[in-house]
Amino acid sequence: MRIGIIGTGTVGRTLAAKLVSLGHEVTLGSRTKENAGAAEWARQAGPYGHAGTFADAADFGELVINATAGTVSLQALRLAGADRLAGKVLIDVSNPLVFAPDGEVSLDPVNTDSIGERIQREFPYTAVVKALNTLSAPLMVDPGRVPGAHNLFIAGEDPEAKARVRSLLEQFGWADEVIVDLGGIAAARSTEMLMPFWLNMMRHVGHTDFNYSFKIAE
Amino acid sequence: MRIGIIGTGTVGRTLAAKLVSLGHEVTLGSRTKENAGAAEWARQAGPYGHAGTFADAADFGELVINATAGTVSLQALRLAGADRLAGKVLIDVSNPLVFAPDGEVSLDPVNTDSIGERIQREFPYTAVVKALNTLSAPLMVDPGRVPGAHNLFIAGEDPEAKARVRSLLEQFGWADEVIVDLGGIAAARSTEMLMPFWLNMMRHVGHTDFNYSFKIAE
Repeated sequence: MRIGIIGTGTVGRTLAAKLVSLGHEVTLGSRTKENAGAAEWARQAGPYGHAGTFADAADFGELVINATAGTVSLQALRLAGADRLAGKVLIDVSNPLVFAPDGEVSLDPVNTDSIGERIQREFPYTAVVKALNTLSAPLMVDPGRVPGAHNLFIAGEDPEAKARVRSLLEQFGWADEVIVDLGGIAAARSTEMLMPFWLNMMRHVGHTDFNYSFKIAE
Repeated sequence: MRIGIIGTGTVGRTLAAKLVSLGHEVTLGSRTKENAGAAEWARQAGPYGHAGTFADAADFGELVINATAGTVSLQALRLAGADRLAGKVLIDVSNPLVFAPDGEVSLDPVNTDSIGERIQREFPYTAVVKALNTLSAPLMVDPGRVPGAHNLFIAGEDPEAKARVRSLLEQFGWADEVIVDLGGIAAARSTEMLMPFWLNMMRHVGHTDFNYSFKIAE
């Protein structure tokens, strides 16, 4: 499949590398045409890896992934272009983390709104699926880094889009039964609001190779 | 131990019953002296169960538990009285859930503050420990309702107070190794912010006998 990735940070590049290794063709999109890191990534990735602008990535992808920081996602997706995103599935991996000068980390939006919902409202012709925003980039594409069965959470309005995202996640190594569908895109609030807890757990554990796993009574 | 419980809802009564069954002496505190439910609970609980006002419960307890709804906790604790709570450990089980007329559930405070921190700030001579606010009341006192090992989270400023709370939780059946200390009371934000996710999971699972269990790489 042709996949466009909006954002060239750790998340974008980790997803891009995995997708190319699975045989997908990827355009990694940057804010500017001259992004040395993205160009270098594309050179190393071989014939199935390309670099371009946000608009190039959105144009290229049959499916598009938002891998920008949540606080700049709307801006990035406007540059990608509503017309280029229309009719497509957009996987939103972002979390709207705000880092204050005093080290305090908070979310904006939070509580009664989420970045997932804001994207869906602003791009009504795109099927937004919130996914993969609850764990580290290396773990997203390699669930075996953490032993046993552990969970992923998805949210979105379009059942067909969620089925396509599930299928892609299964290619990453996530068994269908560990992927929990939390409902409509408003559920993105609840997974974005896991971030402060995840950060505290990271401090407690001392690394990022951990994940939620639910124990449920029969 | 003598324990005062502020709040006579499901959480307060569930904790009270368990504590009495463990041999502790409990005063279940209500807003008013004439709370029929609390009086009835005390009658059934036997000689180790008492009913009284918030102030009676705070006065009685060597350790006090806030089991009121987070949105009214500060008001309830003011009625309990700062002088009666001074020098004591206060376990804060509350979550500040706000239920809007349209069915939307949100938190107040949230993100850059928490009810745990607000209580600690207003009662500086009390050692507040956030605990048990991430699971259902029946599961709080009976971890075996859910199979396998699953986690509890505590937060607070005073290591000695946290050790006392751990010891009480162990009496409830929680092994020391499943109790995760997330740090100072500011970490209460992160566990209170789990609530929207927990509510979505409850809808997904169809009941409340489930809990977080962390899978962590060695």
